[in-house]
Amino acid sequence: MSRLVEESAATPEVQAIYAEIKAGFGLPFVPNLFKAMAHHPGYLRSSWDRVKTIMGQGRLDRRTKEIIALAVSATNGCEYCIDAHDAAVRGLGLGDPEIAEIMAVVDLFNGFNRLAEGLRLESDLKA
Amino acid sequence: MSRLVEESAATPEVQAIYAEIKAGFGLPFVPNLFKAMAHHPGYLRSSWDRVKTIMGQGRLDRRTKEIIALAVSATNGCEYCIDAHDAAVRGLGLGDPEIAEIMAVVDLFNGFNRLAEGLRLESDLKA
Amino acid sequence: MSRLVEESAATPEVQAIYAEIKAGFGLPFVPNLFKAMAHHPGYLRSSWDRVKTIMGQGRLDRRTKEIIALAVSATNGCEYCIDAHDAAVRGLGLGDPEIAEIMAVVDLFNGFNRLAEGLRLESDLKA
Amino acid sequence: MSRLVEESAATPEVQAIYAEIKAGFGLPFVPNLFKAMAHHPGYLRSSWDRVKTIMGQGRLDRRTKEIIALAVSATNGCEYCIDAHDAAVRGLGLGDPEIAEIMAVVDLFNGFNRLAEGLRLESDLKA
Amino acid sequence: MSRLVEESAATPEVQAIYAEIKAGFGLPFVPNLFKAMAHHPGYLRSSWDRVKTIMGQGRLDRRTKEIIALAVSATNGCEYCIDAHDAAVRGLGLGDPEIAEIMAVVDLFNGFNRLAEGLRLESDLKA
Amino acid sequence: MSRLVEESAATPEVQAIYAEIKAGFGLPFVPNLFKAMAHHPGYLRSSWDRVKTIMGQGRLDRRTKEIIALAVSATNGCEYCIDAHDAAVRGLGLGDPEIAEIMAVVDLFNGFNRLAEGLRLESDLKA
Repeated sequence: MSRLVEESAATPEVQAIYAEIKAGFGLPFVPNLFKAMAHHPGYLRSSWDRVKTIMGQGRLDRRTKEIIALAVSATNGCEYCIDAHDAAVRGLGLGDPEIAEIMAVVDLFNGFNRLAEGLRLESDLKA
Repeated sequence: MSRLVEESAATPEVQAIYAEIKAGFGLPFVPNLFKAMAHHPGYLRSSWDRVKTIMGQGRLDRRTKEIIALAVSATNGCEYCIDAHDAAVRGLGLGDPEIAEIMAVVDLFNGFNRLAEGLRLESDLKA
Repeated sequence: MSRLVEESAATPEVQAIYAEIKAGFGLPFVPNLFKAMAHHPGYLRSSWDRVKTIMGQGRLDRRTKEIIALAVSATNGCEYCIDAHDAAVRGLGLGDPEIAEIMAVVDLFNGFNRLAEGLRLESDLKA
Repeated sequence: MSRLVEESAATPEVQAIYAEIKAGFGLPFVPNLFKAMAHHPGYLRSSWDRVKTIMGQGRLDRRTKEIIALAVSATNGCEYCIDAHDAAVRGLGLGDPEIAEIMAVVDLFNGFNRLAEGLRLESDLKA
Repeated sequence: MSRLVEESAATPEVQAIYAEIKAGFGLPFVPNLFKAMAHHPGYLRSSWDRVKTIMGQGRLDRRTKEIIALAVSATNGCEYCIDAHDAAVRGLGLGDPEIAEIMAVVDLFNGFNRLAEGLRLESDLKA
Repeated sequence: MSRLVEESAATPEVQAIYAEIKAGFGLPFVPNLFKAMAHHPGYLRSSWDRVKTIMGQGRLDRRTKEIIALAVSATNGCEYCIDAHDAAVRGLGLGDPEIAEIMAVVDLFNGFNRLAEGLRLESDLKA
C-alpha cells in the first residue's frame, strides 16, 4: 500500500500546508488522510482549501456539519472516517446518547431508502 | 410493480395507522412509503412506531434529524427520499443556500470516505 | 449513450447466443442487458454461460435465487434490475404480500448494516 | 467509540428487553447491536419489536429471510452483520456449498446492477 | 428542489467562475452541477480549482482519468454523472465497443468486491 | 465463515482450473477469491473464463483495466480487492504518485456523484 508522506520527509511546500492543517484543526499531528494526499501536492493544497471553505462557519454551524460527516461515513462504512468524526462530535460535546440518536436516524433512513428504491415508489410531491 | 394500498381499500386496522401517520406528519395524505408497507400490516405498525420514537424530540432536535435524513438519502441516491426530506427541511425553514451547505458536506465526505478506503488508511487515533 | 445491438443487426455468433438466451429464459425477446453486452461478444458469451451456471438448479432453488437477486437489486437501487426481478418473482408465484415481506427484510438489514458500521461493532462470535 | 450497555449496567427497562431478545433468538448473550442501541431505550424497544414482526414466520419462511439478510449484508460489506447471518444460516442447516451458491448470486447481480446503471438501460417491460 | 443559479442571475464573482468553467471544459454552457453549487460561492470556487488540479495532465492522462470517472459513476449509479462522462469519453475518441469493455470490468469487479466481502476473505498478501 | 478449498484438498477438476489460474496470473498461489468459489465448481469455471475474456487485451490495455478495477474496489471499500489491485497496478509500473492521482479522481467523483443525486440534477445533454 501507499506510504504516507511524513512531516520530516515532506517538501517545504507540503510542510507549509501541513502547518496550516495542524493549526486549522488544532491538532498536534497531521491526519493520515492528508499525509496520503501529499504524493500529489496540488491535490493536497486544493483539498485543504476546500475543507476550510466547506467546514467553516456558514448558515449551518460546525456541529451540524460534523454530524452530517459522521452520518455519511456510517452510511459508507468507512472506518477511518467514522473514527475521525466520532472523535470530532465528541470534542464538540456529544456523548453516547446523542450518537445513538444520530445512528438511529442513519439506521431508519438507510432502511427506508432501499425500501423506496426496491418498490420504485413515485414521489408524493407529484401532481 | 407493487400496487399501493389506498386509504379507501385499507382494512380498519390499516386505516387507523394511516390516520395516525397523517396526524403525526401534519399531512393531508399518507406518503406512498407507508401505503406500500400496508400489504404487511405488522411491518407498517412497527415501522410507524419506530419513526415516532426515532424522529421525535430527544437530545437532538427535529431539524438536525431531518438534515441527517437528507444527507443519508443523497448518499444513497434515493430519489423518493431526497424529494421527501428536501421538502421537510424546507418546511423547517431551510432554503437553497442552507441545502447547498449540506450538500457540500455530503460531497466532501463521500469523496474522502472512498479515498480513505482506497488507501487503506489506519486510524489517527491508534497508539 | 450506447446503442443496443438489435437482433437484426447482430453477427451470426451473437444471434446464436441471443437464441440461447431467449430459450433459456423462455422469453420472446432478448433483454436489453444482453443486447448492450453484444458490442463485446466474448463478454456476452461468458456472461450468459455464467448466468446459466449460477441461476440453474443447485442446492438452492430458482425461487430463492430470484429473491436474492431482487433483494440485491433493491439494495443497489438499480431500476432496470428491480423491474426484471420483480417480474421474475411474480412469474414464480409471489405477489404483493410476499414482496412486502422481502422488502421488509431488505429495509431492516440495510438499516442495521449501517448502524453496525457506524458504531464499529465487534463481532459477537469473537472470543 | 461508543461503549456498549452491558447487562449488569442496564436499567430494569432495558434488562427486560434484553431478556426478550435472548429468549427470542435462543442465545445466551445479547448481541452487541442491541447493547449499542440501549443508550436510547425507545429505539431499542421499537427495533426489537420490528425484528420480531419482520423476521417471524409469514408467507416467507425464516430460512429465506436469513438468506436475504446475508445477501444484503454482503452487498453492503458489513462485517459484523455478515458474521451474524453467516452463523444464522449455518444454524438453519446451510453449509459451505449452499453459501457459495448464495454468494454466486450476490456476485452476479452486484455486477449486472452496475452494468445496467452504467449503460442507462431502459426497462424491458416498457411499451 | 433547489433552483440552479443561471448565468444571467449570477453575481459578478460567480459569473467570473462560470467563464473559467466554460473555457476550461470548452463548453458553450455551464454544467448544472456547477450552477447548483453557486448558492455557496466559496464551495463553487474551491471545487472548480480542485477539478482543474485533479483532472489536469499529470502522470495519468486525461483519457484514463475520464475512464475512471465513468467507472466510478457507474458503480454509484449516478445518472447525471454517467451521462456527462459517457459524453466525455466519446469526445476523447471512445465508442460503444470501448465503453462495453469498461463496463465489463465494472461489472466483473463490482461482483467480485461483494463476494470477497461476503466471504470475509483474507488478503493474499499477508504473511 | 467458509473454509477455502486448498489445492491439496481439491478435486482433479478444480485442480485443473487452479493450474490455469496460476498460469494465467503468473502467480505461485491461487488467490483466496478463487479458493472460496471452489465449493461450486461450475461457478469457479465460468468465473475464471469470464476473467480471462474481460481482462485480456482488447481495445483497452491491461493497465487501464487494472486501474478501473482499483477505482471500483476503492469506491466499494473492499479491502481484499484493494490490496489485490493495488499490487497489480504496482506490478504494471505505477507507484505512489500515480496511485495518488487515481485516488484523487475517485475522491472527486464519489463526491460529485452524491451531490448530483442529492440535488436531483437534470442532464446537461437534454433538449
